[in-house]
Amino acid sequence: MEKKKNISMAVIRRLPKYHRYLQELLNNDVDRISSKELSEKIGFTASQIRQDLNCFGDFGQQGYGYNVSELYRQISNILGLSDSYNIVIIGAGNIGQALANYTRFEKLGFNLKALFDANPKLTGLKIREIEIHDIDYLSEYLQENSIDIGIISVPSTNAQKVCDIFVKNGVKGIWNFAPVDLSVPDNVVVENVHLSDSLLTLTCLINKN
Amino acid sequence: MEKKKNISMAVIRRLPKYHRYLQELLNNDVDRISSKELSEKIGFTASQIRQDLNCFGDFGQQGYGYNVSELYRQISNILGLSDSYNIVIIGAGNIGQALANYTRFEKLGFNLKALFDANPKLTGLKIREIEIHDIDYLSEYLQENSIDIGIISVPSTNAQKVCDIFVKNGVKGIWNFAPVDLSVPDNVVVENVHLSDSLLTLTCLINKN
Repeated sequence: MEKKKNISMAVIRRLPKYHRYLQELLNNDVDRISSKELSEKIGFTASQIRQDLNCFGDFGQQGYGYNVSELYRQISNILGLSDSYNIVIIGAGNIGQALANYTRFEKLGFNLKALFDANPKLTGLKIREIEIHDIDYLSEYLQENSIDIGIISVPSTNAQKVCDIFVKNGVKGIWNFAPVDLSVPDNVVVENVHLSDSLLTLTCLINKN
Repeated sequence: MEKKKNISMAVIRRLPKYHRYLQELLNNDVDRISSKELSEKIGFTASQIRQDLNCFGDFGQQGYGYNVSELYRQISNILGLSDSYNIVIIGAGNIGQALANYTRFEKLGFNLKALFDANPKLTGLKIREIEIHDIDYLSEYLQENSIDIGIISVPSTNAQKVCDIFVKNGVKGIWNFAPVDLSVPDNVVVENVHLSDSLLTLTCLINKN
């Protein structure tokens, strides 16, 4: 059951959805499932599912289907969920605060360590016992604390500046909510949540429909 | 300059990014741009850009490049931004409140008309002068008011129920923040923002790196 290294971006984007559905099956005490049954639930074709899951190991058994808990465990591993992650949020506005309050992330192993904001009125305040610091303290903080993921929820004009501080101080993953595309070196990864882009995709689809 | 009807989902997903970059060019008083120059800014290949923009009209002129304001206008049209949209938010928790406070959407033509929540403590409160109603009033409200887009930011267990009320009352587009996949008929479109899926994609990429 050797894990292949080169999983395509398309497959990676589908993995969290597999993870979500397998978790639901586990919660419902389902032990095994065929690619056909999984297909009906998840909406990918059975052949797509077999191809995807073959990418990182040989889970299925002809006539038996997939072992749900084993598949869930392997996908969790590939998603990096065997580790936990220290995170910071930069920008304690609406989105930053909403993310800080979203306790679901903690259950997945994400530990929010601190927030930072440029607004001096927010400095020293706390969200769920987690302090908001002045943005000027970010570099020093990152040097003194091991942070894996940085969340950017500042206005687009400041996003690259924050990103550069993350990169310089060894943050390996950036979750970016600013409506801008960030430049990072190859050893740092960025995942964007561009809310306006998503909303405009919706209106485009409404008009196409 | 006839608009072709069958723009692929892949192109549709890229259009908001084109829109964002063209807006920036307009703000910087750039009149025209070649596919090569646009490629350097936006990160798609020049050939990809020419192919994408050819999908919905013949904007480029050999040796001249693209007329920025004309291209911006056409893409805005395709994205449906010549219209404005009435929206409601169901679920006035962290994410729902953050979206309600996000004034950027208004500038794009999205008018938040009301919020709804199942928590009686929130009923009657206002966010930026917009009232939070009891969820039980949603059906009646939708019958009495013309709503184009419904935003779902309720827990996953209630999301399909809210979705069904939207569909039954003629809402054509659903922006779904609940970590669940919704069933809708063909005449209704759903755009998902699955935050946990996005975060797990990030950890997968960190581990792959």
